Amino acid sequence: MALTRTATKLTHEAAIALIRAAADHATAMGQPQCVAVVDEGCNLLSFIRMDGARILSIESARRKAETAASTGRATGGMGPELEIKLAIATEGRMTNLKGGVPIIIDGAVVGGIGVGSGTGDQDREVAEAAIKAVFA
Amino acid sequence: MALTRTATKLTHEAAIALIRAAADHATAMGQPQCVAVVDEGCNLLSFIRMDGARILSIESARRKAETAASTGRATGGMGPELEIKLAIATEGRMTNLKGGVPIIIDGAVVGGIGVGSGTGDQDREVAEAAIKAVFA
Amino acid sequence: MALTRTATKLTHEAAIALIRAAADHATAMGQPQCVAVVDEGCNLLSFIRMDGARILSIESARRKAETAASTGRATGGMGPELEIKLAIATEGRMTNLKGGVPIIIDGAVVGGIGVGSGTGDQDREVAEAAIKAVFA
Amino acid sequence: MALTRTATKLTHEAAIALIRAAADHATAMGQPQCVAVVDEGCNLLSFIRMDGARILSIESARRKAETAASTGRATGGMGPELEIKLAIATEGRMTNLKGGVPIIIDGAVVGGIGVGSGTGDQDREVAEAAIKAVFA
Repeated sequence: MALTRTATKLTHEAAIALIRAAADHATAMGQPQCVAVVDEGCNLLSFIRMDGARILSIESARRKAETAASTGRATGGMGPELEIKLAIATEGRMTNLKGGVPIIIDGAVVGGIGVGSGTGDQDREVAEAAIKAVFA
Repeated sequence: MALTRTATKLTHEAAIALIRAAADHATAMGQPQCVAVVDEGCNLLSFIRMDGARILSIESARRKAETAASTGRATGGMGPELEIKLAIATEGRMTNLKGGVPIIIDGAVVGGIGVGSGTGDQDREVAEAAIKAVFA
Repeated sequence: MALTRTATKLTHEAAIALIRAAADHATAMGQPQCVAVVDEGCNLLSFIRMDGARILSIESARRKAETAASTGRATGGMGPELEIKLAIATEGRMTNLKGGVPIIIDGAVVGGIGVGSGTGDQDREVAEAAIKAVFA
Repeated sequence: MALTRTATKLTHEAAIALIRAAADHATAMGQPQCVAVVDEGCNLLSFIRMDGARILSIESARRKAETAASTGRATGGMGPELEIKLAIATEGRMTNLKGGVPIIIDGAVVGGIGVGSGTGDQDREVAEAAIKAVFA
């Protein structure tokens, strides 16, 4: 019986690089954003709220990141029959708002990034651009 | 006037056996799961989160177990006109997400088991398989 | 710049073995216990409430485990000038009640075990006995 | 009657620079830290959790930053007769744990930085070093 297993974790340098890359992409896009990065345990690793981003997106960006890290999938794809039930059963931590993208390395989910303040499509674009900039 | 009554309660050995059986079934199925067992008072008896199961299912699996123990029925059967109202009125403890199954012995509800991380059908299958393996 | 690092995580088999060993030790001691195991991210891995253990220890056992996993030290050693402030600042998650012990493998904290329902000394004894039984 | 006034606010570039400088100082010190920066509205601006920092300090570091931004003083100086009452009355947001330092520019409090995972003295040193590195 194996008592331990080996896992890959993001470093805090990667977490800083992700919010840096997200902010740069959001600046180029002209839409200030809140950006949260969590690890595979859904614990906050890094965060940035850009000048002009929404205060109420501080929390929702974090929840998008948690949802992506927990499910291993980009947020926004749950069916309408499930999304509200899942949100309530997790005290709002699981959200189907677009803008959460899992961080997957060698097939393993090592965390998630969540972006909020723009449209859902803008939020997702920033999340994907940050991951691409750092891990490509 | 009877002042007391006799109740049947699950032992902690049964509670361990249930998460053991659930984990074995989930392993055979290839879908890691969170599994929670509660007693008839909706209080947690046992819990296991398998390698690779969802962090955000820790809480929702427990709520599925609570709902099944409280109602005496498998979760997933409430009408859409009721499920959200009941969820909100219980601060999310009552959920209609599939995967909660009551544990019924000689006609009495003695607890519930809740499973989460897979599809609703997978979750329910693991819950039913665990009860069958332990009590059949 | 390293983007990832390798970490050791407990398997769910280790998590089951820990609550099994804790329950056996508590039975031999004659004091039923609540036992919680969390990973290094303070997320619940496994739990057992023994027949006759305290309902209100369900939560406090979990918090003892979280505190030990977060600090890398057994609970009970904080100074009186710090313990209440830390408890409030973490919404009660950090506790200085005895009975939480970190799980350390090759120098790395991989989680924590928290035990509650007995005296503080009994709780700690059970936690230490479980770790010793599984990892010795 | 003046209806508006001009305020000085931190930019997100300053917020990133602060967590960067804090992480560098903490690395040199050999004590990984959680670092939170909030604006004068006590809303989160930036955050970093370093490799090996405490999970339970994610929240307390943020609260140290909030307390410093709200009071305009470094945390740790309240009298014992006040600190617990203030903590409870603010649902734990106000804390007297050391490690929170206000960010003051031209006499105006523009935010706060909170650091946690080390000793109180280490936490405060990192907070002060970050402010000095960015604003000196």
